[in-house]
Amino acid sequence: MNTQLSDELTRLLGDRFTMSDYERQQHGQDESSLPPMLPDAVCFPLSTEEVAEIVRLCCLYQAPIIPFGAGSSLEGHVFAPHGGVSVDLSRMDKILRVSVDDLDCTVQAGVTRQQLDQSLRQQGLFFPVDPGADATFGGMASTRASGTNAVRYGTMADNVLALTVVLPGGQVIHTGTRARKSSAGYDLTHLFVGSEGTLGIITEVTVKLQGLPEAMSAAVAGFAEFDAAVKAVTEIRQAGIPVARIEFLDEVMVTAINQFAGLNLVERPTLFFEFHGSTTTVHECAELAGEITHAWGGSDFQWAVDTGERNALWKARHNAYFAGLAFRPGCRSLTTDVCVPISRLAECIIETKQDLNESSLTAPIVGHVGDGNFHLMFLIDPAKPEDLAEAERLNKRLVQRALAMDGTITGEHGVGLGKMKFMEAEHGKGALAVMHAIKQAIDPQNLMNPGKMLPPL
Amino acid sequence: MNTQLSDELTRLLGDRFTMSDYERQQHGQDESSLPPMLPDAVCFPLSTEEVAEIVRLCCLYQAPIIPFGAGSSLEGHVFAPHGGVSVDLSRMDKILRVSVDDLDCTVQAGVTRQQLDQSLRQQGLFFPVDPGADATFGGMASTRASGTNAVRYGTMADNVLALTVVLPGGQVIHTGTRARKSSAGYDLTHLFVGSEGTLGIITEVTVKLQGLPEAMSAAVAGFAEFDAAVKAVTEIRQAGIPVARIEFLDEVMVTAINQFAGLNLVERPTLFFEFHGSTTTVHECAELAGEITHAWGGSDFQWAVDTGERNALWKARHNAYFAGLAFRPGCRSLTTDVCVPISRLAECIIETKQDLNESSLTAPIVGHVGDGNFHLMFLIDPAKPEDLAEAERLNKRLVQRALAMDGTITGEHGVGLGKMKFMEAEHGKGALAVMHAIKQAIDPQNLMNPGKMLPPL
Repeated sequence: MNTQLSDELTRLLGDRFTMSDYERQQHGQDESSLPPMLPDAVCFPLSTEEVAEIVRLCCLYQAPIIPFGAGSSLEGHVFAPHGGVSVDLSRMDKILRVSVDDLDCTVQAGVTRQQLDQSLRQQGLFFPVDPGADATFGGMASTRASGTNAVRYGTMADNVLALTVVLPGGQVIHTGTRARKSSAGYDLTHLFVGSEGTLGIITEVTVKLQGLPEAMSAAVAGFAEFDAAVKAVTEIRQAGIPVARIEFLDEVMVTAINQFAGLNLVERPTLFFEFHGSTTTVHECAELAGEITHAWGGSDFQWAVDTGERNALWKARHNAYFAGLAFRPGCRSLTTDVCVPISRLAECIIETKQDLNESSLTAPIVGHVGDGNFHLMFLIDPAKPEDLAEAERLNKRLVQRALAMDGTITGEHGVGLGKMKFMEAEHGKGALAVMHAIKQAIDPQNLMNPGKMLPPL
Repeated sequence: MNTQLSDELTRLLGDRFTMSDYERQQHGQDESSLPPMLPDAVCFPLSTEEVAEIVRLCCLYQAPIIPFGAGSSLEGHVFAPHGGVSVDLSRMDKILRVSVDDLDCTVQAGVTRQQLDQSLRQQGLFFPVDPGADATFGGMASTRASGTNAVRYGTMADNVLALTVVLPGGQVIHTGTRARKSSAGYDLTHLFVGSEGTLGIITEVTVKLQGLPEAMSAAVAGFAEFDAAVKAVTEIRQAGIPVARIEFLDEVMVTAINQFAGLNLVERPTLFFEFHGSTTTVHECAELAGEITHAWGGSDFQWAVDTGERNALWKARHNAYFAGLAFRPGCRSLTTDVCVPISRLAECIIETKQDLNESSLTAPIVGHVGDGNFHLMFLIDPAKPEDLAEAERLNKRLVQRALAMDGTITGEHGVGLGKMKFMEAEHGKGALAVMHAIKQAIDPQNLMNPGKMLPPL
């Protein structure tokens, strides 16, 4: 690393700049099964101004800049394939403003979703986007994250109103306003949401909030065949029943979470439901959903109106990733993330299950079926390269299947390093060229998270 | 106009290419009070391929290209300040595909919202975005339009899944997929939505649909003071009551629609409500909203569950623009469009009303108050330049007020020619420079709807 740059960053940040092996190691890996790639140094800024100065200096000395949040990425977003400086925003963890009247708030990029949620609860509010990990707002915005609530409340794309962004060179801009909607020019907010740190560093995020519903209820239903489960979901959506969450778990994942969370669900394809609203609405929705579920052969539509029971159920679902890892101790996961139109979901999962039956690998499945998005967790022994190769072979088949169904390679995890090879198949040369033109226009030196998301032209 | 270009376009399109004064006149004006600016010629393509060929030829001969839909813009979007070719997409009016299972459809850009709605009704579906005019999907996407349903169903930004776009030079790209969500790269769909034809021509639009609710009900409540009406709206939103529409009309607008539509509403600040859902939900929501309304002094919470009565009410609301024009015969309108956080809405309208009281102009007000968006219709006598000057003076004050409240200059009408002068005040030099960089990267010849949206650097 350029010593002038390290000197300048030390002058700026003191011991919040480090080149220690420990921190470099911590910042060169994530939750994926990809081999680590370490940055040369790590910074811990406390303000947008410090981020701006770090970026200015890195651009001056042409060092790659890699934003880092909670490190919970599944696609190598935070890796440093070209070295450079990891900018860890986790100490920018202030909730700057909450408006109960406007149902919105502004947070620094290092605030995590659980931190905000705990702080909001006493005000009767919540933030609905809930990826499995306790990710930061900067990370969730950068990967266009979603989670179990997206079927009702949308993804980060639907919930971010405004951003503060440090551009290459160090200039600070604000995108969007606190108005609920705007037609004023190019939608820079949506451009930076999902840009994976390749256009700048998001330092502050303004998001929409929801009032805590008067009532919530949860339900579980098991099915002999999972396509009946998917058909039930389709019919529930068409009936316009405002379900807050509909999650699918295959029999393998049910077994894994039974073991991990001490539950005793029947081990078969299963749907988890949650309903939000007034007491009357919640009751009515659950009744209707129960009727449809029964009509498709779903049995034991079990209720959990009790808060403790409901929380236990959803905590187990949120920990599915860790339950999956624990299912084959010592394993890492290659996690797939396709999303297809709901009408093709059953077919897509059936064909994928056939692939899996012919393979040596174990891969529990969870799905945000209300959105058509599902994940296979290929459990991979790090000591067996053939495991990874087999998972990649099956994932490639899955991705091609999803694209042929007019779906996407990634519903919520992002592209990072792991899915770059599929970008052209999804977007075509023309749209990919537009993305390159935008990248070139905003980051002509290619210093913002280089080597990610966009495959070389 | 270059005769080689006109020859080539005639060869391509036959009599669907014209330089007639009549068509040039029709395509050089809109619903705004701006003086017309005519294109040199008008094309009526029937397919994406024809649009691509038109764009290729225009770029070859360096002629400006101005997309045209229904001509219902309020900000001069379709004007031709630099001449060139108006590309009228209204004959591309095919509904290409409707999926009941996936609740989505794909339409050509010239399909209008009423056309789609009529076609969907028999399948039990509807498309929720409803600007006052019977706009085309290309136009609604290009201006990031919304309307009365946005408080519940969102704007075009929330409802467009995918686009087919002809880029400068004539290349055709597809953005997005039919998956409900995606984290695959830069969000080109959201970039083209709201780009007002300055980056390319949208030729096909894939949108989300909704199932027709089992029940709908409407209600009207009058208030002595409008800030009580706004406070009632704020409380209804905080209570999480899923209102489909909440519209505000001031006493002047109520008078105008009474006259125009033969209604006999009491002429005072008034809220229109609509509720969608199951019979139980609709009933419960209306009850709760009625209680809150009463608590804020709203009187005569009148019900209209009957379809005929409900439709009459909402038809009157949708025709508010034409009711406003008829209120002062022979007038044109300068229509404002700020959107502010709801907590500032009452204050924003009160100060604006004070301005209005001190002015000679009449300006009925309607507002999508659930979103914080409202419109003054300044009624302007075309023979009196002082009317326009006064409206522009008051609009400038309104825009500055909205920006000071962290709002936007335009909630749903777009920038066009009319609001370019306010863009820097909203976005700042830095964000505006990013927009210019994107424009330059995608349309380096500046031929796509030149002279609109982005003020010169």
